[in-house]
Amino acid sequence: MAESEAEGEALRAVRRCLEAFPAEARELSFTDSVPYLDSLPSPLEFYREWVCPNKPCIIRNAVNHWPALKKWTLAYLREIMNSKLVSVAVTPNGYADAVYQDWFVMPEERHMPFSAFLDIVEKKVTSPGVFYVQKQCSNLTEEFPELMGDVESDIPWMSEAVGKKPDAVNFWLGESAAVTSLHKDHYENLYCVISGEKHFLLHPPSDRPFIPYELYPSATYHIAENGSFEVVDDKAAEKVPWIPLDPLNPDLERFPEYAQAKPLRCTVKSGEMLYLPSLWFHHVQQSHGCIAVNYWYDMEYDLKYSYYQLLDSLTKAIARKS
Amino acid sequence: MAESEAEGEALRAVRRCLEAFPAEARELSFTDSVPYLDSLPSPLEFYREWVCPNKPCIIRNAVNHWPALKKWTLAYLREIMNSKLVSVAVTPNGYADAVYQDWFVMPEERHMPFSAFLDIVEKKVTSPGVFYVQKQCSNLTEEFPELMGDVESDIPWMSEAVGKKPDAVNFWLGESAAVTSLHKDHYENLYCVISGEKHFLLHPPSDRPFIPYELYPSATYHIAENGSFEVVDDKAAEKVPWIPLDPLNPDLERFPEYAQAKPLRCTVKSGEMLYLPSLWFHHVQQSHGCIAVNYWYDMEYDLKYSYYQLLDSLTKAIARKS
Repeated sequence: MAESEAEGEALRAVRRCLEAFPAEARELSFTDSVPYLDSLPSPLEFYREWVCPNKPCIIRNAVNHWPALKKWTLAYLREIMNSKLVSVAVTPNGYADAVYQDWFVMPEERHMPFSAFLDIVEKKVTSPGVFYVQKQCSNLTEEFPELMGDVESDIPWMSEAVGKKPDAVNFWLGESAAVTSLHKDHYENLYCVISGEKHFLLHPPSDRPFIPYELYPSATYHIAENGSFEVVDDKAAEKVPWIPLDPLNPDLERFPEYAQAKPLRCTVKSGEMLYLPSLWFHHVQQSHGCIAVNYWYDMEYDLKYSYYQLLDSLTKAIARKS
Repeated sequence: MAESEAEGEALRAVRRCLEAFPAEARELSFTDSVPYLDSLPSPLEFYREWVCPNKPCIIRNAVNHWPALKKWTLAYLREIMNSKLVSVAVTPNGYADAVYQDWFVMPEERHMPFSAFLDIVEKKVTSPGVFYVQKQCSNLTEEFPELMGDVESDIPWMSEAVGKKPDAVNFWLGESAAVTSLHKDHYENLYCVISGEKHFLLHPPSDRPFIPYELYPSATYHIAENGSFEVVDDKAAEKVPWIPLDPLNPDLERFPEYAQAKPLRCTVKSGEMLYLPSLWFHHVQQSHGCIAVNYWYDMEYDLKYSYYQLLDSLTKAIARKS
């Protein structure tokens, strides 16, 4: 066999390995749906059965003891937070941190009285754009400390399991049009729905060969005086690798590989907690006015992480340039 | 760029990824030597810090309470076991389960009185070949039940950590010439030295791109009447993939990739326990008459395992046919 022929055969074999891998990993490790736990596992069991193998689950009855479950209505939040200024992500289309017309666009971050934000969610006033309290810098502890007494500052059995406290506790409240585009985080994520529902679409990290990434210049939405949105170039920022694909309506002509990816879908209801493992791709929607709190525990950068990084590098190495 | 040129570039990029991976994994996860623990960790800590990240360690003071540590001399074993028949691996050169002249050769498995075996180890008689009690089918419980009272049937904190009992408890006793060739097992291995020393040479699974495998026909040593050894073809057996490389004296002309692999070496002494994680390549030597007991806990076939399988497949896919 000529050398170039042997090289061509080797590359085809590499492609076959990477294409077969997601199904092999799925068959060995993951089920077609996200399983439910009806009671709390011990910290050791939770680490061994879910965190270490990087498997999602929905835990029922984990936050029954939180006052928030009964107390947190929009009226109660209005009473407690009143006109205090909070950070709200505002976008024209509900997509904060997502690809729009060949840009990676971040939301306008508006500081506004919480009561004015609630007026919009409750449709007492209209305002151009989609509003979402979703700032992921531990905004529950930073901006809503008045609410901390109704939940917990960490999830004790998870802190014991992973041997550390969460890096961030985030508060989420927004309109039904607000969507979180497909992405992944380097956190072990416990996502607790207090009221309403969150709809997750998930891919395990092993689906990476089917998930497209592209590099986009970074921009931010700004609302002009007349209420129209403009996309403002963040000139100083580096380009951002992001996923251009909408998993609800994938463009399979442009991204044919994605046809082989099989998303898991789940709905997390009031009182339920999703364990969303680190590096899982997720796309999130919600019922209007859904209230949620999530805990981000930093992941371990261990052999499993190195393997993922290798998968990522190899996927890029064999990508056909279009 | 012409297509074949792009393909060549893609394959070179794949090769670079796989060559860089072992060092990247090592830097993130592993130290240059095997760390010591001076006391027992909790089951959760052990799972989180060692089993899940697939990191070896040597645990001191883990088996201080075993009567075996004080009782197990060769004289005591002779008294207890006497002339009871046991399985002994006999080879001409000390290598059981290893590549010899383009064969994968297994030892002659001889059933002999334990006292006759000890006569050889203690050099009271001479006999052609190298003798090693090393049968890995839970031979401690199966062939040496009289000794079980001096150790434990499992390692309780490990059984709690991994949520199961060991699949096998093995007893090891042999001559200094007996060597275990480089290989890996699908077990979490707790290796306890009772007397003497074991010398381990280790490679993490992430070194797979530098570890050569080849396919060999299977054979077994037989000792002829005159004491000479012959290699007998196991005609019915399938070919066996095995590592032809001797890490103590690597043939770098034949296996140039191995020059980039960096073995970890450690000596496990009497009273110490090595945690040898699943899929770690290991080569083992010992002091003459070393006595050891090890516990094999079946590994988890999870995402980390799938990633290893991918690494294995890719290493084969890009191997240059010689």
